Amino acid sequence: MKLLIVNPNTSRPMTEGIAAAARAVAAHGTRIEAVCPSFGPLSIEGHFDETVAAAGVAEQVKRHAGPGAVEPPDGIVIACFGDPGLDAAREVSGAPVLGIAEAAFHAASFLATGFSVVTTMTRTCVIAEHLVQKYGFEPRCRGVHGTDIPVLALEDGGAGCVDAIEAAAREALVRDRSGAIVLGCAGMAALCAELSARLGVPVIDGVAAAVKFSEALIGLGLRTSGHGDYARPLPKTYLGWAAPLGW
Amino acid sequence: MKLLIVNPNTSRPMTEGIAAAARAVAAHGTRIEAVCPSFGPLSIEGHFDETVAAAGVAEQVKRHAGPGAVEPPDGIVIACFGDPGLDAAREVSGAPVLGIAEAAFHAASFLATGFSVVTTMTRTCVIAEHLVQKYGFEPRCRGVHGTDIPVLALEDGGAGCVDAIEAAAREALVRDRSGAIVLGCAGMAALCAELSARLGVPVIDGVAAAVKFSEALIGLGLRTSGHGDYARPLPKTYLGWAAPLGW
Amino acid sequence: MKLLIVNPNTSRPMTEGIAAAARAVAAHGTRIEAVCPSFGPLSIEGHFDETVAAAGVAEQVKRHAGPGAVEPPDGIVIACFGDPGLDAAREVSGAPVLGIAEAAFHAASFLATGFSVVTTMTRTCVIAEHLVQKYGFEPRCRGVHGTDIPVLALEDGGAGCVDAIEAAAREALVRDRSGAIVLGCAGMAALCAELSARLGVPVIDGVAAAVKFSEALIGLGLRTSGHGDYARPLPKTYLGWAAPLGW
Amino acid sequence: MKLLIVNPNTSRPMTEGIAAAARAVAAHGTRIEAVCPSFGPLSIEGHFDETVAAAGVAEQVKRHAGPGAVEPPDGIVIACFGDPGLDAAREVSGAPVLGIAEAAFHAASFLATGFSVVTTMTRTCVIAEHLVQKYGFEPRCRGVHGTDIPVLALEDGGAGCVDAIEAAAREALVRDRSGAIVLGCAGMAALCAELSARLGVPVIDGVAAAVKFSEALIGLGLRTSGHGDYARPLPKTYLGWAAPLGW
Amino acid sequence: MKLLIVNPNTSRPMTEGIAAAARAVAAHGTRIEAVCPSFGPLSIEGHFDETVAAAGVAEQVKRHAGPGAVEPPDGIVIACFGDPGLDAAREVSGAPVLGIAEAAFHAASFLATGFSVVTTMTRTCVIAEHLVQKYGFEPRCRGVHGTDIPVLALEDGGAGCVDAIEAAAREALVRDRSGAIVLGCAGMAALCAELSARLGVPVIDGVAAAVKFSEALIGLGLRTSGHGDYARPLPKTYLGWAAPLGW
Amino acid sequence: MKLLIVNPNTSRPMTEGIAAAARAVAAHGTRIEAVCPSFGPLSIEGHFDETVAAAGVAEQVKRHAGPGAVEPPDGIVIACFGDPGLDAAREVSGAPVLGIAEAAFHAASFLATGFSVVTTMTRTCVIAEHLVQKYGFEPRCRGVHGTDIPVLALEDGGAGCVDAIEAAAREALVRDRSGAIVLGCAGMAALCAELSARLGVPVIDGVAAAVKFSEALIGLGLRTSGHGDYARPLPKTYLGWAAPLGW
Repeated sequence: MKLLIVNPNTSRPMTEGIAAAARAVAAHGTRIEAVCPSFGPLSIEGHFDETVAAAGVAEQVKRHAGPGAVEPPDGIVIACFGDPGLDAAREVSGAPVLGIAEAAFHAASFLATGFSVVTTMTRTCVIAEHLVQKYGFEPRCRGVHGTDIPVLALEDGGAGCVDAIEAAAREALVRDRSGAIVLGCAGMAALCAELSARLGVPVIDGVAAAVKFSEALIGLGLRTSGHGDYARPLPKTYLGWAAPLGW
Repeated sequence: MKLLIVNPNTSRPMTEGIAAAARAVAAHGTRIEAVCPSFGPLSIEGHFDETVAAAGVAEQVKRHAGPGAVEPPDGIVIACFGDPGLDAAREVSGAPVLGIAEAAFHAASFLATGFSVVTTMTRTCVIAEHLVQKYGFEPRCRGVHGTDIPVLALEDGGAGCVDAIEAAAREALVRDRSGAIVLGCAGMAALCAELSARLGVPVIDGVAAAVKFSEALIGLGLRTSGHGDYARPLPKTYLGWAAPLGW
Repeated sequence: MKLLIVNPNTSRPMTEGIAAAARAVAAHGTRIEAVCPSFGPLSIEGHFDETVAAAGVAEQVKRHAGPGAVEPPDGIVIACFGDPGLDAAREVSGAPVLGIAEAAFHAASFLATGFSVVTTMTRTCVIAEHLVQKYGFEPRCRGVHGTDIPVLALEDGGAGCVDAIEAAAREALVRDRSGAIVLGCAGMAALCAELSARLGVPVIDGVAAAVKFSEALIGLGLRTSGHGDYARPLPKTYLGWAAPLGW
Repeated sequence: MKLLIVNPNTSRPMTEGIAAAARAVAAHGTRIEAVCPSFGPLSIEGHFDETVAAAGVAEQVKRHAGPGAVEPPDGIVIACFGDPGLDAAREVSGAPVLGIAEAAFHAASFLATGFSVVTTMTRTCVIAEHLVQKYGFEPRCRGVHGTDIPVLALEDGGAGCVDAIEAAAREALVRDRSGAIVLGCAGMAALCAELSARLGVPVIDGVAAAVKFSEALIGLGLRTSGHGDYARPLPKTYLGWAAPLGW
Repeated sequence: MKLLIVNPNTSRPMTEGIAAAARAVAAHGTRIEAVCPSFGPLSIEGHFDETVAAAGVAEQVKRHAGPGAVEPPDGIVIACFGDPGLDAAREVSGAPVLGIAEAAFHAASFLATGFSVVTTMTRTCVIAEHLVQKYGFEPRCRGVHGTDIPVLALEDGGAGCVDAIEAAAREALVRDRSGAIVLGCAGMAALCAELSARLGVPVIDGVAAAVKFSEALIGLGLRTSGHGDYARPLPKTYLGWAAPLGW
Repeated sequence: MKLLIVNPNTSRPMTEGIAAAARAVAAHGTRIEAVCPSFGPLSIEGHFDETVAAAGVAEQVKRHAGPGAVEPPDGIVIACFGDPGLDAAREVSGAPVLGIAEAAFHAASFLATGFSVVTTMTRTCVIAEHLVQKYGFEPRCRGVHGTDIPVLALEDGGAGCVDAIEAAAREALVRDRSGAIVLGCAGMAALCAELSARLGVPVIDGVAAAVKFSEALIGLGLRTSGHGDYARPLPKTYLGWAAPLGW
């Protein structure tokens, strides 16, 4: 079984970190391949970054899972908490495509009546909130909280980051009356075990959750619906650098 | 890894059928143990049946996963589409507990922008609708449809059942503009493959979905939150036949 | 007119206290009969307790209002704030069945644009919140607040309880900008008058509200709908101790 | 106990018809006094009519229940299905004030998991829908249906009206999967018994429901909250014909 | 182009102040005519005031835009933050009718992902909240906050008012994580520029917003729908002072 | 005043058609400049198309309104009914940015209690539905309907298109009980007048609505909030073709 992990930003170290987090939980027979777009922002900390990164996800999914792809993956994970390009990827790929935000929300819903999200920049809270609304997790998600840790600062994984996230999580558990914490950034994957140990409640990293749920769906033989809203893209000319993205 | 499947009704054949459906998708190292309550209805086709059956789920979960249980399971699946006793079971068990309705809803949400549920008795549609509302799947679930096939008629698996479910599903796909079908009864598990082949869209059996998602959560090392709403039950005397259920 | 009050827990003193609260508001011609299940928890402070208690409600309603019942009641009240077994009871009884949580929510909605609930254990807040969502009181209910008073401590009715509830209510009135308080436990019925006097806003005890609303519905000649979702249970074998609950 | 029924339109025959419907269900000790505004439309079949009629309700409530009123009522019912002037009346009166739409919605919610409204002019459906949304009955109200019977045609109570309403109700029960019917006009009160007999499901007339629920609230000693949103009006000069409405 | 501004209260100075605010933003060819009802409260600070004022709006709109009106306006603005009489006015007038609350909510939604409302009396917050719910701005409006400044105190425009509103706005921006402020009273129009300068975020006065959006709709040649819910009022006799309001 | 119209697809004829539609309603002093991305699909008929097109919107908005832009526009309109790149554009531009879907929804809400959307491909209905949900128009939007007219077929403006749209609109007005029609594609702008004449209800073209609402906001001196969620993008390196999009 081959899982394609698409890191929507263009940071090589973060792509590798995400791949490592994925491999750490993958089943014995699961092979992880991690890629990032050929263009776009080094990190995603707002709508503009995310909009360009979503096109990068489209590029990578078309390349690796579109018509004529060599050895297409059995499942795809989009490894940024805003789930950029998720709907686009599902039009391309019959293999299941999961975003890490939705995967984390689903996992948390299995474990607690309510959960809180702790993320990086406060300005991106609204992105998570829009996903909560779109996906229907409003009865479950009791709060989204920023720590204002820059995404790339997470790469160093310093104790300061863990402490700041732990503090925000502790406050959220009380203020939101939550039973679980969702980590709101792919870059937090490496901190998940430490935070779980400190907090004593389920702490969910979306990368890991998406990998295991992908394995589950693949194991069930389920594929993205090609009927209706996610039907394959219509034949169409694309111009400029995007010409190869046409159908 | 041991998964406990609790069939909330007391039909032995249906318990065995559900166990078979679970084993058919379980991973190599997953051992399936299927039980049903020592009391209660042979099938669940309304609120009264379900209310008594939920207590039966509580009984079985306490017995197999409560304090002093010998070899407690690593995960628990409640195999009736109304998810009876789900919250109670989560108070008892640190091991993840999944209902098949919620598992099916989550699976469908990964594969289509909207899904429809096809269930047995029309009178039970409201049970599924209440779950959709409680869990937050209102943006995703576009309709719940009854076929008025009695639950126990599904045991025979006659072609008539498949045809009736297929017809209801086809109508739902068009009328609800849905991309996937959720089977609204554990007794439909054996028909899932045939219906998938006929309909050409994802058809989701909650038993299978719950087994794989349980494996996924166990693989992630995640456990039911013991913090807050799902804290273990408080010490308490129970009277009558329920005395062993006290804490 | 005969009203059956079903106390879902098995505490005799609490059953008698609830009966007294009911009789205190009942109309001249209303006869109150209070029962509790033959099995189950002495108090209800979580989902597990409630799930077993709901089966106890089913048992009592079948016994007193099911086929062959001698002198079936004209109305039924389920006297625990989680409204356990409410839907089941409505399948059994053509006579109106009211839960005390819903009755209290309805009463509060007639008196204020927004209300707050003050309940016992914080861990049970989520039960009230699920009812608020299910019933549709989200535009009205502005908060559910725990005091962490154990249910059975209410029996003593000590001043400490009243003070703690008053304090929580005062804070809720300000923080939630509410105009009325709903008492979130049948065991608080005896404190209602004192709290009303202290707080100067409507304080609603669900037991009393359910009794008077039952009288109102009976006076209107209205009965539970037997059409559709609340149709009488289908004929069915029940096993074990529950055999008498079959249809 | 004295109940003031305010008919928001200025039709004397309809005022008397509503009074008769109220008296038919009132308890032994309840005295019904029915009034209508000194100005405004003879029937209410749209927003313009309703807006003027609401001011008429304010006039009557101030006169009969405001400061200096002689023998103020113990409860007030606003007898038009749009509940015009309800919030205004609650600012004036400590005695409970109920609208017949809300009373009917509450009654139906006690009897069925879902109900449908059958009303007069299709153009007024949106008024009922706005109330459903405002009050929070969206999980319960499954449809609002117009019959395009003019309000004043109901006064004659011809068989044609009953047949048309029955037909609309039958279609609603099936199409909406409802278990109860709410009559969407005070003028339908006299038809309620006949429709109940024909349809075999609970049919709810808001006038009767509001009378009995008012008696219930008065029996509980509950009053409109004077705290916060429904505090008594601030002292203020009113000009023109409305000068007596000032505070 | 002629715009009719209806001030629902009967304060002449406030009517003139609103007219001035409207003229300050009106386009070169837009003529502003401001009126107020012949009856009703000098200011609107609760439901009772508003209910009477809404009838005053109906009176003025019928007079100036109803059948036989001399030189009917091309657009109408209702200049009180509760939007009293809005639906009634739309039945009368084919020319677009805008309320200042809705206009402000729409404007804010174009400029920020979330906004907060700062209004006068805390007791009127619920009026704005009901509009937010009715119009559908719940995903955008993150809070409604009272300052308890009396409406008529705004006429003096004292620095104290500006300071109090600024303080409430600053707290709202942080607590609600909002990006824009909506002024919740027509009487605040004159303070808008000063508050914008102080706060550094968009501050929206509904009077100005409604004038410009009216010009926009008129420029598009769009008119109120006469089809369905806003069809012209049915022919009808009105009694008392309201006789001229009949159709 | 200069308005930048960004057509997210790369069709020159459609860009010109949109520019013509914009100029047809623009005020005397408004200069329209229409651009399209340097890359991407010729039309947008699904999520994949839209995702790439959104990056094209980001490119154009940065170029024309970002730091160092020569003569930046006073307002920006994104002229595709999915509002691709809207949030991204608002981070870049202090000048107001409007999407044509939201502008049309807002316009319709001023004119009718409910509206229906008639769009091109049925498979894109879900895109409009997601916007309706995100923006909060669920109480207003009563249906989204596909005609399965390809976007580029609209360029020819054949009578067949008008007839098909008219038929879908007529059915929607009845089935949805709507009072206005929103055209769900920028390519329908040229058909708006004809459809208005045929249908006799408000028919809203988002391009025109967005132009006039932009003029309104600019006239009010309002700008996109730079506080919080729409703060300017953080400094960041972009790789590949997107390097010029870095900050």
